[in-house]
Amino acid sequence: MKKVQRLALTLTPFLLAGMLLAKADAADTTKLDGPLTIAKQGSFFVGGHDIKSDALSSVPQFGASGTITVDQMYVRYQMPMHPKDYSVVLIHGCCLTGKSWETTPDGRMGWDEYFLRRGFSTYVIDQSWRGRSAASPVALNVVKTGKAAPDTVPAFTAAGHEVAWTVFRFGAEYPQVFDGLQFPLQAQEEFWKQMVPDWNYSMTPPVPTVKALSELSERLGETVLISHSQSGIFPFQTATMSPKGIAGIVSIEPGACPATNYDMAALKGIPVLVLFGDFVAKSEVWSKRLASCRDFADAAKKAGVEVEVVELPSVGIHGNSHMLMQDKNNLQVADWLVGWLGKHVKG
Amino acid sequence: MKKVQRLALTLTPFLLAGMLLAKADAADTTKLDGPLTIAKQGSFFVGGHDIKSDALSSVPQFGASGTITVDQMYVRYQMPMHPKDYSVVLIHGCCLTGKSWETTPDGRMGWDEYFLRRGFSTYVIDQSWRGRSAASPVALNVVKTGKAAPDTVPAFTAAGHEVAWTVFRFGAEYPQVFDGLQFPLQAQEEFWKQMVPDWNYSMTPPVPTVKALSELSERLGETVLISHSQSGIFPFQTATMSPKGIAGIVSIEPGACPATNYDMAALKGIPVLVLFGDFVAKSEVWSKRLASCRDFADAAKKAGVEVEVVELPSVGIHGNSHMLMQDKNNLQVADWLVGWLGKHVKG
Repeated sequence: MKKVQRLALTLTPFLLAGMLLAKADAADTTKLDGPLTIAKQGSFFVGGHDIKSDALSSVPQFGASGTITVDQMYVRYQMPMHPKDYSVVLIHGCCLTGKSWETTPDGRMGWDEYFLRRGFSTYVIDQSWRGRSAASPVALNVVKTGKAAPDTVPAFTAAGHEVAWTVFRFGAEYPQVFDGLQFPLQAQEEFWKQMVPDWNYSMTPPVPTVKALSELSERLGETVLISHSQSGIFPFQTATMSPKGIAGIVSIEPGACPATNYDMAALKGIPVLVLFGDFVAKSEVWSKRLASCRDFADAAKKAGVEVEVVELPSVGIHGNSHMLMQDKNNLQVADWLVGWLGKHVKG
Repeated sequence: MKKVQRLALTLTPFLLAGMLLAKADAADTTKLDGPLTIAKQGSFFVGGHDIKSDALSSVPQFGASGTITVDQMYVRYQMPMHPKDYSVVLIHGCCLTGKSWETTPDGRMGWDEYFLRRGFSTYVIDQSWRGRSAASPVALNVVKTGKAAPDTVPAFTAAGHEVAWTVFRFGAEYPQVFDGLQFPLQAQEEFWKQMVPDWNYSMTPPVPTVKALSELSERLGETVLISHSQSGIFPFQTATMSPKGIAGIVSIEPGACPATNYDMAALKGIPVLVLFGDFVAKSEVWSKRLASCRDFADAAKKAGVEVEVVELPSVGIHGNSHMLMQDKNNLQVADWLVGWLGKHVKG
């Protein structure tokens, strides 16, 4: 009797401890849906510098003269309980902001949260001069007050729904729809609200975002720059600036790949993925861009760079638009990408 | 022997269940620091409407003609595991974005996360035409292309550091510092990066943000609109539009309170707090604004509205600037505010 009692009393703490550990592990291990436990979250800026101007404002209650800070880049992050050795930076494209990676237009989980749940510390940026990253009003105010000619107003570009429809490959032309398209067009109204005007075309490359990405990569130590469309070229320009902290480059449907005479030495030891969705052959502009990326990849491989160009249908994933991080199968695409990172990126 | 064994076997599941429940509760109850468990997070837009224009772009690769969506408002939210009956909406001020409420310039927790940890579903917005809420480029492009006169460029206002220093009450004038100031001036460089140019002064009130706040309040059902500075007047304008969903109004250092002839019927059943920091008597502009808010409060009380005007020093909290949600004692201020809400807002 004593023996059994002792056994029970002896075993119970182990049983309890074991089950509590299992429970603690369950609470610490991030699940792919349901409540989410994060170690830390927050936001900060990188880059930026002060300028002085006497054209800050045309409103009487504000002084026109003074100092403002421009070119900085807003960064919001979330860290999981048990982060992988390397983080990811999600870099949006033209006429969009970091919102691209958040909740999809039809209300599903975005890649910002999904990569977090898959164990990545996740950094979402707003490009310099866009979203929460300040633009400068100076070039407008000097025109308004007659100190500069009207045609010096910088390019400030909105993509209309009709143009975006084709560029984002929802269909061959507005409002046609590709058969099997995965973009949640029923929520297109919410998607159009994500779009913002873009100062990028008023700037000479490399744009301030690239300098800020370089500072961010160095600060993070080991990070994969995941870029999209307009920003597709940015990680390559960042690597040219400095390879510090860049653990990998994922360029999703880049507006441009580097030229074949790009200095491939910048990519030494950095695995590169160029990723395209579906229907590329049905789009003249994207066919050309894909071909040019394949040319770049061939030249890069010859120079010893580890680079891969993948069209999602070739790995069995179909129907993806240019906005593949928002498509109905966005988490399937993310899973494939996480697998690719696991194979190629050394933490 | 059998009896004890049975007892042990009988008790063990209860012990286990009890301890597991305790563990589950601990995981579910949000702590004020350390790892954070949230029930749900995401982002969406409210408001917005389509416009057609032939001045969307001056860049050849984009069509100038088409449809864009404008006036929508970006909203990011996080929900705790056991939310209170009413949520809070955090509404930033002039020349700033929703970033105001996130990590402070010196890297401490912002009110967005602190209110969440205190049990509130927390909604942070970017005002329409600011941050992740699109502006329209049309009025600029028509000037650039000579279709409108230069002086029709809309007001696009940046507040310089020097002007902001005085308005934000860091000191009597730049670069003087008030004795006992709680703003983390050692991190001012990071603070200046938060500032963005502001289209608000090109608009006729009520600005699109107010319409969007009305839609958001109705959608949320029971929410407290917490506004700051420029947006201080917005919750009152929202209530005039419709009281639906507004469980309370907190106007932090409003640029303007409603006039004494404001239709107080809009505030029936809505508790109102107008909250000021320290050093108000040392600022001419803020002294006038406080006096005008006291006039409004007197008139509102006479009409039966539950309204209170509080200067933080009167409740024993000292040293606060205009940016009190970022001051070193920002969580002390939040605690006081949560107490006020608990007493006055009926969930």
